[in-house]
Amino acid sequence: MQELFSDRISDVPPSFIREILKVTQDPTVISFAGGLPSAALFPTKAIQAATQKVFETGGNEILQYSTTEGYGPLREYIATRYRDKMGLEVNPDNILITNGSQQGLDLLGKALLNEGDEVIIEAPGYLGAIQAFSIYRARFHAVPMDDAGMQVTPLQSTLATARAKLMYTVPNFQNPSGISYTNARRREVVEAMQDSRTLLIEDDPYGDIRFEGTRPDSFASMMPERTILLGSFSKTVVPSFRLGWIVAPDSILEKLVIAKQASDLHTNYFSQRVLYQYLCDNDLDAHIENIIDKYGRQRDTMLEAIGREFPDGIETTHPDGGMFLWVRLPEGYAARDLLQKAIKDKVVFVPGDPFYVDGLAHNSLRLSFSTVDEATIAEGIKRLALAIRELLQEGRAA
Amino acid sequence: MQELFSDRISDVPPSFIREILKVTQDPTVISFAGGLPSAALFPTKAIQAATQKVFETGGNEILQYSTTEGYGPLREYIATRYRDKMGLEVNPDNILITNGSQQGLDLLGKALLNEGDEVIIEAPGYLGAIQAFSIYRARFHAVPMDDAGMQVTPLQSTLATARAKLMYTVPNFQNPSGISYTNARRREVVEAMQDSRTLLIEDDPYGDIRFEGTRPDSFASMMPERTILLGSFSKTVVPSFRLGWIVAPDSILEKLVIAKQASDLHTNYFSQRVLYQYLCDNDLDAHIENIIDKYGRQRDTMLEAIGREFPDGIETTHPDGGMFLWVRLPEGYAARDLLQKAIKDKVVFVPGDPFYVDGLAHNSLRLSFSTVDEATIAEGIKRLALAIRELLQEGRAA
Repeated sequence: MQELFSDRISDVPPSFIREILKVTQDPTVISFAGGLPSAALFPTKAIQAATQKVFETGGNEILQYSTTEGYGPLREYIATRYRDKMGLEVNPDNILITNGSQQGLDLLGKALLNEGDEVIIEAPGYLGAIQAFSIYRARFHAVPMDDAGMQVTPLQSTLATARAKLMYTVPNFQNPSGISYTNARRREVVEAMQDSRTLLIEDDPYGDIRFEGTRPDSFASMMPERTILLGSFSKTVVPSFRLGWIVAPDSILEKLVIAKQASDLHTNYFSQRVLYQYLCDNDLDAHIENIIDKYGRQRDTMLEAIGREFPDGIETTHPDGGMFLWVRLPEGYAARDLLQKAIKDKVVFVPGDPFYVDGLAHNSLRLSFSTVDEATIAEGIKRLALAIRELLQEGRAA
Repeated sequence: MQELFSDRISDVPPSFIREILKVTQDPTVISFAGGLPSAALFPTKAIQAATQKVFETGGNEILQYSTTEGYGPLREYIATRYRDKMGLEVNPDNILITNGSQQGLDLLGKALLNEGDEVIIEAPGYLGAIQAFSIYRARFHAVPMDDAGMQVTPLQSTLATARAKLMYTVPNFQNPSGISYTNARRREVVEAMQDSRTLLIEDDPYGDIRFEGTRPDSFASMMPERTILLGSFSKTVVPSFRLGWIVAPDSILEKLVIAKQASDLHTNYFSQRVLYQYLCDNDLDAHIENIIDKYGRQRDTMLEAIGREFPDGIETTHPDGGMFLWVRLPEGYAARDLLQKAIKDKVVFVPGDPFYVDGLAHNSLRLSFSTVDEATIAEGIKRLALAIRELLQEGRAA
């Protein structure tokens, strides 16, 4: 019954990550593949206490249907935090609560993209965004990254030749590469966009998880009228609640609310109430400091082990925060071939291919340092180094 | 920036219900407009106990990311319940947990509908389905209802002339009309569909809330290979968790999972765990009996008050379950005009227009009997009767 399906659904690239997850059922396999935060750091006791309090004070209403826009006090909390932490003025009315950032991407596709509309995306770029916009049959233009962000010259020529409606970026500790845009690069990007009508989507789930340096200016502060900002509690509090948000100008937010209502009426209201209670009763920044401390040490361990174990000619990024780093094998070697060897050595990662809309850069791979403890990271990198040496010895693929 | 928006988003009819909700902020207004279940019946204490237990036994994992398909034991519970209550054999692998039934509709549109694909819908039909499929730019064919379900002759001619990919129905206690399909009508519908390739969507959020009579056969049992079944815990347990499901054949479910992953990765996992614990520790049928008892008495009160208060020439449905009944004014009178008068008399309802894709039947309206107690129903119907008499006295609109 192939003809029953929509054209769009066949355009969605499969998530290779799901296939890898099957392998990681084996507890002797060390996984750098998952994009998960560390469950060991979840504030479970505090969430439990917040839940208890919501039941005691909220009454039956906490279990009823609610508004499409989301819980008012939670939207106010988010706005206040933007002002306090980033000096960014956001009206709570311009915030829509979503089922995680991923739904933010779906709603943006729904409200903004016609079939064939052009979207600029980083190369490598976030797979979830590629999937979400593929559903709306976007035509992608990939702009390569260097260590400071999207490269300006190819961006300029893409903006000049394509009539891109949207440009998508993860400017802080990008998934998959770990790269952050420097302040200088942000200014260059804004300048390059000046003469276009392209809207910028600034997806920032990792921005708070910074190990070193100071937070650069957000695109939302530099181009408020043209930036749509996405945020999430999945990496800083808990993912299972599926709570993220979109900040957008009035006219766009109005359409996103229509799209949200048609998509699922509203986000789980009980969890919004519990999360808000947690945020009222706890010091989120102190909690984030714990995450920073742990992930930061795990990143150090991973980079040290790579320096010690990997053969020459393997490049990596040096992320200042977040959960991921990016490895590039010498040209001509395929990360998928490496994965086959690595699985035998009981270590896994995500090959870079699905993060490129044009299917290039087969020689890159993503390593996550968020969920694996330091001793295991050292052992896993050792195993991976073994697999790499084996791959290099066999020589380049024909 | 109108040109920034997708064509699809402008196709979505607005939810008139949201506008009415503003009026109902006034506590002196009696509202028959909401489509909400009665919060007074929510099993809040039992949900609280289930939550506590999940925290005590679940560990941090209950707050982590989870699978796109949904929590396995919850899918098994749903399959078992279909077998026990309806004699319907469903494999848990054919169940996808969604953010309420509304997301089921969105995912079906996403995976199945190309722009211009034809969809048969009841007239009146569920507004949420009209909104969800409008997003995918479906072309609707409305088939009128009588007291036994969709009328067969217009259905036959629609199936013969349109090449409908989908047909959407709420066969038990339909929203908005309260109409249920008789067993005989179900067989006629199945026979009419025999020579078509149309898939049937059987949306059944209210089927368990039956005041009298016995449950007819489901379309899923009569045409398993061509029926997609939607269910929900919003009307039988609580709505704020946003937990519904889709049952679909293998090949379709596989595409729905891709669509779900691109839409929001997965449904709130914590709430799935809590709901499952609640279902394990409580007698759902005993709880549903309470709902049936209360809504049944409220329906009786509403029908009695209508019989007593309304002038001659006003028709209503007589629902055997669910939350809604349907009122038809004499031809030539508009329910929207009635609403203006009713608001002055401090009673509100939803005019029927948005439930018709062709904008006809301006003389019908929906009354909800789920959230208003018996004394208030009697008073509200009295006020509404006053408004109707006033409307009729003014005569038909020019």
